Amino acid sequence: MKRVKVSRKAHFNAAHRLYRKDWTDAQNEVHFGKCSNPHFHGHNYELIVSVTGDIDPDTGYVMDMKVLKDHIKAEVEDAFDHKNLNIEVPEFADLIPTAENIVVVIHQKLKKILTPGQELEVVLYETPRNFVSYSE
Amino acid sequence: MKRVKVSRKAHFNAAHRLYRKDWTDAQNEVHFGKCSNPHFHGHNYELIVSVTGDIDPDTGYVMDMKVLKDHIKAEVEDAFDHKNLNIEVPEFADLIPTAENIVVVIHQKLKKILTPGQELEVVLYETPRNFVSYSE
Amino acid sequence: MKRVKVSRKAHFNAAHRLYRKDWTDAQNEVHFGKCSNPHFHGHNYELIVSVTGDIDPDTGYVMDMKVLKDHIKAEVEDAFDHKNLNIEVPEFADLIPTAENIVVVIHQKLKKILTPGQELEVVLYETPRNFVSYSE
Amino acid sequence: MKRVKVSRKAHFNAAHRLYRKDWTDAQNEVHFGKCSNPHFHGHNYELIVSVTGDIDPDTGYVMDMKVLKDHIKAEVEDAFDHKNLNIEVPEFADLIPTAENIVVVIHQKLKKILTPGQELEVVLYETPRNFVSYSE
Amino acid sequence: MKRVKVSRKAHFNAAHRLYRKDWTDAQNEVHFGKCSNPHFHGHNYELIVSVTGDIDPDTGYVMDMKVLKDHIKAEVEDAFDHKNLNIEVPEFADLIPTAENIVVVIHQKLKKILTPGQELEVVLYETPRNFVSYSE
Amino acid sequence: MKRVKVSRKAHFNAAHRLYRKDWTDAQNEVHFGKCSNPHFHGHNYELIVSVTGDIDPDTGYVMDMKVLKDHIKAEVEDAFDHKNLNIEVPEFADLIPTAENIVVVIHQKLKKILTPGQELEVVLYETPRNFVSYSE
Repeated sequence: MKRVKVSRKAHFNAAHRLYRKDWTDAQNEVHFGKCSNPHFHGHNYELIVSVTGDIDPDTGYVMDMKVLKDHIKAEVEDAFDHKNLNIEVPEFADLIPTAENIVVVIHQKLKKILTPGQELEVVLYETPRNFVSYSE
Repeated sequence: MKRVKVSRKAHFNAAHRLYRKDWTDAQNEVHFGKCSNPHFHGHNYELIVSVTGDIDPDTGYVMDMKVLKDHIKAEVEDAFDHKNLNIEVPEFADLIPTAENIVVVIHQKLKKILTPGQELEVVLYETPRNFVSYSE
Repeated sequence: MKRVKVSRKAHFNAAHRLYRKDWTDAQNEVHFGKCSNPHFHGHNYELIVSVTGDIDPDTGYVMDMKVLKDHIKAEVEDAFDHKNLNIEVPEFADLIPTAENIVVVIHQKLKKILTPGQELEVVLYETPRNFVSYSE
Repeated sequence: MKRVKVSRKAHFNAAHRLYRKDWTDAQNEVHFGKCSNPHFHGHNYELIVSVTGDIDPDTGYVMDMKVLKDHIKAEVEDAFDHKNLNIEVPEFADLIPTAENIVVVIHQKLKKILTPGQELEVVLYETPRNFVSYSE
Repeated sequence: MKRVKVSRKAHFNAAHRLYRKDWTDAQNEVHFGKCSNPHFHGHNYELIVSVTGDIDPDTGYVMDMKVLKDHIKAEVEDAFDHKNLNIEVPEFADLIPTAENIVVVIHQKLKKILTPGQELEVVLYETPRNFVSYSE
Repeated sequence: MKRVKVSRKAHFNAAHRLYRKDWTDAQNEVHFGKCSNPHFHGHNYELIVSVTGDIDPDTGYVMDMKVLKDHIKAEVEDAFDHKNLNIEVPEFADLIPTAENIVVVIHQKLKKILTPGQELEVVLYETPRNFVSYSE
C-alpha cells in the first residue's frame, strides 16, 4: 500500500511575550530582547499540519482534508486565535511561548486525531522569515 | 521625463486591540468581535511603501531604495516593531488601531521624505488575507 | 475624512471550458486552443475584493472585514465553488466564462454591498500567472 | 561525494470529480461532499519534483534542471494539462483522482528518468492550502 | 462595453552593474554602493505585464493570454534572459540599467503590441522586496 | 527532551556563469547552455537555513533566531551578496558555482555554528522555480 503525506495550511493571530517569571526584567531583556516587551507583541501564525499514512483503497484518501481542517479548527484555531498566549492559553501558564514550545504543544493536541500507523508533522511560521517544525 | 513608481517591502510585528474607551465591553464585542479581546492579540504587519516621481537622469533612480529602506526603518519599524500599538505608540492613544487608521498614520509619518512632485502610497497587510491601501 | 481601500482575499475552485455554441469545434480550437476541451478543465480561482471609502470615525473601519468576507461567501463562493461554470452557474449560460467575463460578473454580484460613496474593485487570478482586474 | 536534492516547480490545470462508480450518488456525496459534483470542478495543480543524488564532479550538477524540466513536460504536463482527469487520462479510468492517487501516478511516470542511486520525491499542491507528498 | 485589465507574469535572469562611465569608481561607489561592483551582480527579474482594454464580445477576451505570453517572450525574455544588461543589451549601452530604466525600456518594447484604445502597465520586481511600475 | 527544527530565511544577489576552464566555449555551451554566457548572468538567491536540536528548557529556544540571523549575515550574505561568484568568492575559484555546489559551500561555512547534537540543513532557491537542499 502506498504511504503518502497529506498537508493542510491553517492560521491564527495571537499576542505573546517571551520571559521567565523567575528572571528580572533585565535578565529577560538580555535573553529575549524586544520579544520580552511586558506590553506584548504579536504574530500571524501560519500552520502546516501533515499526516503521513496509507492511502485508503476505498476512498483514495489518507485522511479526508475536510476532517483534518475541522480538527485543526477545533484543537488549534478555536483555542489560540485572537488570544494572548501567555494569559489565556493554559498550556503556556508555565511554559515560555517560543515558536519551539508552541509547535510541540500543537503537535500534542493534534496527535489524538491519528489512526494507528499514521504519523504527524507540524510546521509553524511565526513570521514569513522564521519557522519551526516538529514530528515524533 | 518618465514618471515611475518605486516600491519597497518592509515589516513589523505588534500587538493591538480594537475598542473604544467610551463603550462598554459588550458594545465593543458587538462592533469588534474577538478583535476587542482585552488581553490583546497581534499580527505580522507587512508593508509596501511606493513613491511615484520622475527618474533622475543622473542616477536613473526615482529614489535610492536604500534611502527609502532607511526612512521606513526610522519612521515605522523602530516606532512600531514588537510594540503594543494601543499602549506604546502615541498616535494610537486616542485613535483605534484598525488597519485603516494605521495605514493613514504611516502615510503621515513617511510623507516628509518626499521631494516636490513625488507622491506616496502605502499598502499594509494585517494578515496575508486582509490589507488596506492609502494615498493622497 | 480619509479615503482608504480595504481588500480581502477569497477563493473558489471550478471547472469550465471556453467555446461558442455557434462555432464548430474546429473554430473553437482555433480561438481557444486547449481551453476549449469539451471535457472541461479547471482552476483554483483566487479573488481579491477591494472596497474604497471613507473611514467611519466611530469604528475606524471602512467596512468590517468580517462582513465583507461573509458577503463574498454568500455571493461568490457559495455560487461558484466546486461548480461547473458553463453548466451550473446561470450567468454563464450564454456568456463565455473567460476570466474577463467572470470578473465582471463577480463585480456585478458584489456591488450591491456598497454604501453611497464607496467604490469596488475585483481582481481574479485564474492561475498564479494570469489574472484580471475590473472596477467601474 | 556530496548528495544533494534538486527541485523543480511545474504546473498543470485539470478538471476532476471524486466518486466511485459502484456507489450511489448519495454514498458519493457522503464520502466526497461537493468534490463528487457530477459536472466536475477543477484545480491549478502545482508540482514540485525533487531528485536526490550525487553531484557529478564534471558538471557540478545532480541533474541538468533543463532536462528535468523537459521530462516533467513530456510525462506530466503534456498528459494532464487542460484535461479531464477522469475521462481523458487512462491512469484514472479505474482509480479515483484524489491528490494522493495523482501524486503516486506522477511518481510512477517520472521514476524512469532516474539513474542508479538517485531518489525521487513528488509534492503536489491541489490548492494553495492542500498538498500531498510521495517518495519511495 | 466593459473595460478590463488582463495581466501576465513572466521572468528573466540577468547580470548588471550601476555606474556612470563619466564618474570615477569612488563617485560611483558613493551613489550606487555595492550595486556599482565592477564585476557585476545579478537578479531574477519577475515581470507583470498588464493590458487594459475592452472585452471582445466574440471571444470574451481583452487579449488572448497566449498571444500576450508570446509577445513577452519575443520582446523581453529572448532579449534579456541570461544576459549581461550593460554589455549585451543595446538599450543600456548609454543608459544605467536601474530597475526604473529597465521598466521604461520594457514598456517601450511592448507597447507596439497594443491595439487602439488599449493601455499598457509594466511592473518589474528586481528582488522580492524591491519593485517598480510604469504606465503612460 | 523535544527535538525541533528551527528555520530562518535570508537572501543575497550575485552574478555567476557555469563553465569549465579546461573545456572550449563550444563544449561549455553544450553542457551549460545560456548559463555559460561569458558575460555572466545573475540571480536573487533565497536561502533557508535550518538547525535541528533539543529545546533548551531555560529559554524555550533551540537557537536564538537573532543569533542564527547574525551568523548567516556574517558567513553568507557579507561574503556573497552583490558579488561575482566566479571572480570574487574564493571557494569558486576552482569549483563551478552551480546551485548544488553553492549549497554545499554554504553548509560548510555554517556548520561551525552548531553545538554538539545539532544538525544543519540548507535550502537554496536559485530562482523561484529551481532550488536545491543539502544536509549531512
